[in-house]
Amino acid sequence: MRLIGIDPGTGILGFGVIDRLDYNSLQIIDAGVIRTPAKQNDADRLKIIYDELRAIILQTKPSVMAVEKLFFAQNVTTAMSVSQARGVILLCAKEAELEIFEYTPLQIKQSLTGYGRAEKKQVQEMVKVILKLDHIPKPDDCADALAAAITHSMSIGS
Amino acid sequence: MRLIGIDPGTGILGFGVIDRLDYNSLQIIDAGVIRTPAKQNDADRLKIIYDELRAIILQTKPSVMAVEKLFFAQNVTTAMSVSQARGVILLCAKEAELEIFEYTPLQIKQSLTGYGRAEKKQVQEMVKVILKLDHIPKPDDCADALAAAITHSMSIGS
Repeated sequence: MRLIGIDPGTGILGFGVIDRLDYNSLQIIDAGVIRTPAKQNDADRLKIIYDELRAIILQTKPSVMAVEKLFFAQNVTTAMSVSQARGVILLCAKEAELEIFEYTPLQIKQSLTGYGRAEKKQVQEMVKVILKLDHIPKPDDCADALAAAITHSMSIGS
Repeated sequence: MRLIGIDPGTGILGFGVIDRLDYNSLQIIDAGVIRTPAKQNDADRLKIIYDELRAIILQTKPSVMAVEKLFFAQNVTTAMSVSQARGVILLCAKEAELEIFEYTPLQIKQSLTGYGRAEKKQVQEMVKVILKLDHIPKPDDCADALAAAITHSMSIGS
């Protein structure tokens, strides 16, 4: 099964595609970020996200999307901006007929480290170990997207 | 000039299309709402909004979109849901190459009634008067969408 994990955002959106061979064997296929220029307006930036994410889905052909669920922050402006991007991300997934699953940061930390209050760094270290990578994927958004995909893979069971 | 006004929402989205003949002469072309079933998931509902709004834009061919800007509510869940819908609405506008303008509820009230704290009912009454309608368009989302379009028309000047 091929999964795409997404860490949503307007300025930078992380994605990570993995193959689940079995419960204990995951393989990285692709990972990266979509960046949009801060000087552009919302509509322009959402169009970039839509076009690029659609291209990534067409190219890598996942059947499942795991999206990090918005953990509500103090900053309402950020929450609204991330939600706008999420709208476009969910639309992309729906149009490509992907199954969609959502995980909170707490669930992701719990799945990867066994501890819901783990440090970001510990989660990233586990992404590296689980996917047998030489180093932690950078930037953070990319590692976070892979962590969401791994969380879904683990939720399926053996 | 033809304008489409939008009152964003996931459960119900209002739209109103008007022609601006000149500063004092506006004509209603179409108005209504897009409803999505509460029992469906976010992705399904966003896809309905995307498909229906795109069809309305293709059919009525506006050159400008005026969107009500989220006035931040106490309810964060609602704010995030409305923002997801806004993401898809802005994408539709961008794909159809519409110019996009955003107005806060305060700006809309100010434009239509001259008073930023006017009652909702007063704004709706002005929509009826300005567009020379027999009655106030229903539901409220539809009247609010027309009010956004009228606000943009007034902002252009004579």
